[in-house]
Amino acid sequence: MEQQVKNKQIVLKNYVNGFPKESDLILNASATISLKLPEGSKAVLVKNLYLSCDPYMRGRMSESKGSYVDSFTPGSPIAGFGVAKVLDSGHSNFKKGDLVWGLTGWEEYSIINSLETLFKIQDTDVPLSYYTGILGMPGMTAYAGFYEICAPKKGEYVFVSAASGAVGQLVGQFAKLSGCYVVGSAGTKEKVDLLKNKFGFDEAFNYKEEQDLEAALKRYFPNGIDIYFENVGGKMLEAVLSNMRFNGRISACGMISQYNLEQGEGVRNLVNIVTKSVRMQGFIVSNYFHMYPKFMEMVMPLIKEGKICYIEDVAEGLESGPAALVGLFSGRNVGKQVVVVARE
Amino acid sequence: MEQQVKNKQIVLKNYVNGFPKESDLILNASATISLKLPEGSKAVLVKNLYLSCDPYMRGRMSESKGSYVDSFTPGSPIAGFGVAKVLDSGHSNFKKGDLVWGLTGWEEYSIINSLETLFKIQDTDVPLSYYTGILGMPGMTAYAGFYEICAPKKGEYVFVSAASGAVGQLVGQFAKLSGCYVVGSAGTKEKVDLLKNKFGFDEAFNYKEEQDLEAALKRYFPNGIDIYFENVGGKMLEAVLSNMRFNGRISACGMISQYNLEQGEGVRNLVNIVTKSVRMQGFIVSNYFHMYPKFMEMVMPLIKEGKICYIEDVAEGLESGPAALVGLFSGRNVGKQVVVVARE
Repeated sequence: MEQQVKNKQIVLKNYVNGFPKESDLILNASATISLKLPEGSKAVLVKNLYLSCDPYMRGRMSESKGSYVDSFTPGSPIAGFGVAKVLDSGHSNFKKGDLVWGLTGWEEYSIINSLETLFKIQDTDVPLSYYTGILGMPGMTAYAGFYEICAPKKGEYVFVSAASGAVGQLVGQFAKLSGCYVVGSAGTKEKVDLLKNKFGFDEAFNYKEEQDLEAALKRYFPNGIDIYFENVGGKMLEAVLSNMRFNGRISACGMISQYNLEQGEGVRNLVNIVTKSVRMQGFIVSNYFHMYPKFMEMVMPLIKEGKICYIEDVAEGLESGPAALVGLFSGRNVGKQVVVVARE
Repeated sequence: MEQQVKNKQIVLKNYVNGFPKESDLILNASATISLKLPEGSKAVLVKNLYLSCDPYMRGRMSESKGSYVDSFTPGSPIAGFGVAKVLDSGHSNFKKGDLVWGLTGWEEYSIINSLETLFKIQDTDVPLSYYTGILGMPGMTAYAGFYEICAPKKGEYVFVSAASGAVGQLVGQFAKLSGCYVVGSAGTKEKVDLLKNKFGFDEAFNYKEEQDLEAALKRYFPNGIDIYFENVGGKMLEAVLSNMRFNGRISACGMISQYNLEQGEGVRNLVNIVTKSVRMQGFIVSNYFHMYPKFMEMVMPLIKEGKICYIEDVAEGLESGPAALVGLFSGRNVGKQVVVVARE
């Protein structure tokens, strides 16, 4: 047997009901792993560098109700998107030393068997952590959800909720690049300032300071909303629906306000979908991964020319992972939440 | 001045709140009209034969809140789709004696100025009243909403609410012709029997007899629903959402359960739109009227070969119009509700 090294892991204690707590995730400091794959393995062994905290992961902490992703296994390390370095490979597409991004484990080292969600990193001229965000799953989500689902036209009115998050900050910038008028909502003054001063949103507001979301949206969109990039659900969706314009489009990317509720909130105003010919479309980003090269071709020059920017909230060390992940659901993070496991 | 004749009218008394009552519509028996258009008029003067009672008309009885159709004018006759005979025409597309269907007034004679929603009837080999239903606006609605919005595939699981209504009964039959499995809901035993025995639905149920709509749908769709043709909204939509399959489609045709509520019901389970990549699409049939010839080419042979059938609920006389129209909202009608003003 090959020599074993320590492999710290973040393990799901048990299925979660309601809001997840830091204590739902525990550090297992005693696991070990061999840094060489067994003879004949077709997997890839990686050292994890950056881990991505994403709201959809909440669904995997619950017992499966036939969702599009499997539940995590209590007692086992959780999984998510991340950036990693290949230490050993049984597959010809990957070789030792390659940098990759894709689905990996929340641990120091992982053996990755599902290679269809593992992408080789070609361009290292940008921060590697970007491959958990703007150049990874959230970037593809913003791209597919905005361009493919919403088909924006110049001059249209765009609203983005959770607008300073991993996906929202990009959608807002894509909307500006498309010649749209874009307003974002977020939950703190700091985030609202970022939206206006850093990401170039035309307007932004703190939804927690609004008594009447419907009236707030009417103030920012006197002519109504053509495109809503939906990240939150619940009362915000309700308020948006009555402000939609004819032929409006809603890209249903996520509904973070609902993930921790035993029973989701009731949403009124759906009749506007009928009366205003609105299209509301949910989507799973993995169905759009074939467009990744096209996306990279668009976004990489924008980054390098400084025409698009990306804000990350970086937590240091695997140990900080549970707090970082749980913090998403109280909006603690400012920008894309990343966990650094190792820098190389 | 030309000689005047009596022109009975159904007039909106005042804007309606909540459920409409028969008394919200009054018969004006004293109006008169000339049966010749003034010199130089570009309008068409018609004698109304059949009038169509449609749920969307409820919206026009309320004071406008920026809907896709204007409000009716209190004190004036209401308007809707109907079948009529041309008595005089100032437009070269129509001549005296032509039979037409389209938007007309609830009165014995109407002067029609908006000719873009007036269609000449070519085929009189079927009951003329069909042009208020299967061959008119509801037929086009079923066609566009099912084929264009839902893009059905053979073997898919289809659910239709208000399934014995003007639109629903057609959607169910279209679904069977497309090789789908189709279940309908309705509000009486008589209607449920019609669905199963007359329209060929695979299954049908009385929603009023179900304690738990979500469980009822799970019973009829153990594998989930691919296509939902939405006519009712509210609690039924909520139950459908949690039974949708991945990549499901919801054609949002109407939400009759919500039209008479001051504030619509809250609908839970919308998060399924995200997790199951569901598309929910509202539409306005008038945006599909350019497909009318294509639709006729498909549906007319089906009628003549007895491969599709259509049930009407016929009210005799303009005076019966208010009760017939108001009856839609308590489900009094069995099949398409028509009002006969005159038979020729």
